[in-house]
Amino acid sequence: MSEQTKYLLGEDRIPTHWVNLMPDLPGEPLPPLSPATMEPAGPPDLAPIFPMALIGQEVSADPEIEIPDEVREIYSLWRPTPLFRARRLERALDTPAHIYYKYEGVSPAGSHKPNSAVPQAYYNREAGIRKLVTETGAGQWGSSLALACKLFGLECEVFMVGVSYDQKPYRRAMIETWDATVHRSPSDLTEAGRSQASHPSGSLGIAISEAVEIAAGADDTNYSLGSVLNHVCLHQTVIGQECLEQLELAGEYPDVVIGCVGGGSNFAGVAFPFLRRKLREGGDTRFIGVEPAACPTLTKGEYRYDYGDTVGMTPLMPMYTLGHDFVPPELHSGGLRYHGDSPLVSALVKAGAVEAQAVAQTSAFAAAVQFAGVEGILPAPEPAHAIRAAISEAEAAREAGEKRVILFNLCGHGHFDMSAYDAYHRGELTDLEFSEADMEAALASLPETPSIA
Amino acid sequence: MSEQTKYLLGEDRIPTHWVNLMPDLPGEPLPPLSPATMEPAGPPDLAPIFPMALIGQEVSADPEIEIPDEVREIYSLWRPTPLFRARRLERALDTPAHIYYKYEGVSPAGSHKPNSAVPQAYYNREAGIRKLVTETGAGQWGSSLALACKLFGLECEVFMVGVSYDQKPYRRAMIETWDATVHRSPSDLTEAGRSQASHPSGSLGIAISEAVEIAAGADDTNYSLGSVLNHVCLHQTVIGQECLEQLELAGEYPDVVIGCVGGGSNFAGVAFPFLRRKLREGGDTRFIGVEPAACPTLTKGEYRYDYGDTVGMTPLMPMYTLGHDFVPPELHSGGLRYHGDSPLVSALVKAGAVEAQAVAQTSAFAAAVQFAGVEGILPAPEPAHAIRAAISEAEAAREAGEKRVILFNLCGHGHFDMSAYDAYHRGELTDLEFSEADMEAALASLPETPSIA
Repeated sequence: MSEQTKYLLGEDRIPTHWVNLMPDLPGEPLPPLSPATMEPAGPPDLAPIFPMALIGQEVSADPEIEIPDEVREIYSLWRPTPLFRARRLERALDTPAHIYYKYEGVSPAGSHKPNSAVPQAYYNREAGIRKLVTETGAGQWGSSLALACKLFGLECEVFMVGVSYDQKPYRRAMIETWDATVHRSPSDLTEAGRSQASHPSGSLGIAISEAVEIAAGADDTNYSLGSVLNHVCLHQTVIGQECLEQLELAGEYPDVVIGCVGGGSNFAGVAFPFLRRKLREGGDTRFIGVEPAACPTLTKGEYRYDYGDTVGMTPLMPMYTLGHDFVPPELHSGGLRYHGDSPLVSALVKAGAVEAQAVAQTSAFAAAVQFAGVEGILPAPEPAHAIRAAISEAEAAREAGEKRVILFNLCGHGHFDMSAYDAYHRGELTDLEFSEADMEAALASLPETPSIA
Repeated sequence: MSEQTKYLLGEDRIPTHWVNLMPDLPGEPLPPLSPATMEPAGPPDLAPIFPMALIGQEVSADPEIEIPDEVREIYSLWRPTPLFRARRLERALDTPAHIYYKYEGVSPAGSHKPNSAVPQAYYNREAGIRKLVTETGAGQWGSSLALACKLFGLECEVFMVGVSYDQKPYRRAMIETWDATVHRSPSDLTEAGRSQASHPSGSLGIAISEAVEIAAGADDTNYSLGSVLNHVCLHQTVIGQECLEQLELAGEYPDVVIGCVGGGSNFAGVAFPFLRRKLREGGDTRFIGVEPAACPTLTKGEYRYDYGDTVGMTPLMPMYTLGHDFVPPELHSGGLRYHGDSPLVSALVKAGAVEAQAVAQTSAFAAAVQFAGVEGILPAPEPAHAIRAAISEAEAAREAGEKRVILFNLCGHGHFDMSAYDAYHRGELTDLEFSEADMEAALASLPETPSIA
């Protein structure tokens, strides 16, 4: 047993700061726009639904932001997470590449999402907030916020997309175990919900509208978002910082860093600490964001201002988008079904600092099953996209006959996604079509906004 | 962050030997009996379905048995597992007790079961066996053996109790992801299955009969069992050995060691290394096996010879039993629904070295929900019984005003048991009745066997 498989860190090595990549971005940062005026939106526009500490992080130019002790204490329930060398996968691929994966599935909620849910609950409690409201689709974010609220003594309400509420009773039960209230959306609790009663299966857009409406209408209640925003990407950078230190233990530095991209936060989490080093000191490391071919925001979307939600209540953000009323097909990777992308990740793709790849759903599942057969862990469908890209890189290294150090983020386990595996085993999983016509229509319906070319 | 939460070990600290408690047991070991002759059964009686290496471990008097390097390499995919200090639970209980839990849910299959599945697959492959056949109820063992067979290149067939096959499609999908074939039992593939076609919901007893029939009928195929037997308890002792070292890091030694008991292997795993020390060197450490009140083998069963399976095909073993044709009520803790118990654990209870407690199902779930609300992790229903006992010990320590070091085995997560949590949240979970009349009838139907008073 001379070959090391896992690189572990003690909890004294939980990072003390988050990495804020904003000051390293090429060019001037583009502000969000108020949906009412199309003028730059400032902190007061966000204050009704977010605490000032998070708004401050959203616009901060500080390169590092200190992690509160209480947050690090909660992190210590599962962090630092392990970094694995995928030696059995390397042997199966007969590749000279060294493949490393960071495993975020060890959190109690089963993914990287609590990395941001915990500080969000913390700052809201510090601001005197009593309750957080959010939406959830597949349930990863809803369960993570429920956990964080439970640990900080906050109430939590989750609007769960109707079709998921019906099809994913186990995620709902998990959320309820941590004492949060789950509403099937559209509900009759909000104006937004009542107005959508004719769409009983619901959508993430409707659920967001319901949650924001509740939060905007009560002084002691705030809203919480699980990806896309700068402060969410910021919180996830504990992932990449730990990887830096763990790879140092292994005596390596990555040639390629890979993460799947939905709203962008898990990719940001693993990549930003390495990206900062490259942007400041140079180097050849490549960064690859992997998205589903059926919702190809970064590879086929347009870089422009768009709303963050479907109904157009939020500020407009500069990002790659398929149009805010583009409805992605019913992918099994619910976490990657978003019309837009993190403004930070979008700017990095636009600047050429990050490559984007699109992967078909069945190809992602084939990679996940191959991975599970040698490494054991059953991946969630979302990081299965990253696994596919990592395998392709390892195969390219074999063809080129070169050692290549590959790092990818295995951002969650698939224990609540086994119905998708079942469909895959039975040959019932298909590659869903991306409709360029629908995207064009969605983009055409957007209001005039300042150009960001 | 001065308070430590997790005690981690590097993979170089995976134990090199398993602890065989057999030579430490009080009195002469009692042999199993052949079902045909009621005479002591020897290795030849087991050879048609087990490899000689495992039969040797089943009867070994060696105090330690070396773990093969290849097994330790597979263990390194998830071992050593973390030991947690439950500081948040301690604070919630306002107790001076120190509560530690070993978390076996980090294995790819989600429980301690792969600790034995991996060496079983290894020794069978070494013996030239091509395929393993087993039964599974809730699916923990079936998925663990599927994983182990996949990693060692063996075929695997799992007979899954019909009602579980229908109700637990996600465990089935997990087993299939690791390439095993799952049959709904009773099947039409075996004589045993065909003879039971009138019981379409199946039972563990029928599934065992089907698996044993297949294994006995093919030279290249063996049978594999996930608990009860001596060699299974042996393999699980990696758990307790790691705990010994991790508690040493914490500067503590347990006053109480707690595990839930179904067939007995997870309890044996955590307890035997500590028990050996007590049996050899003395000390005050107490050992508590916790079973469900609806299937109270150790607390209400009779200590005598009985069959391991329901239909009476296996050797008879000396153990606490409710009678081999006693059918336990449909508990949500499927892993604790067994009429008998490990002969080793039974002998230790009989000798007074291990205490037994019974816990009602709703009380176990209440403890699990309390635990999840402070520690995060969602426990499986089986270790929820151990959590209830640990909380009771911590409350007793508070009443007595004394520090007490409590160690329990959190042998698996509950991600595939959320329907039971859902039933609990909805108030639909009831405490099932144990029927003494049924037990008396089951015991009365047993054949005359040598007394073991």
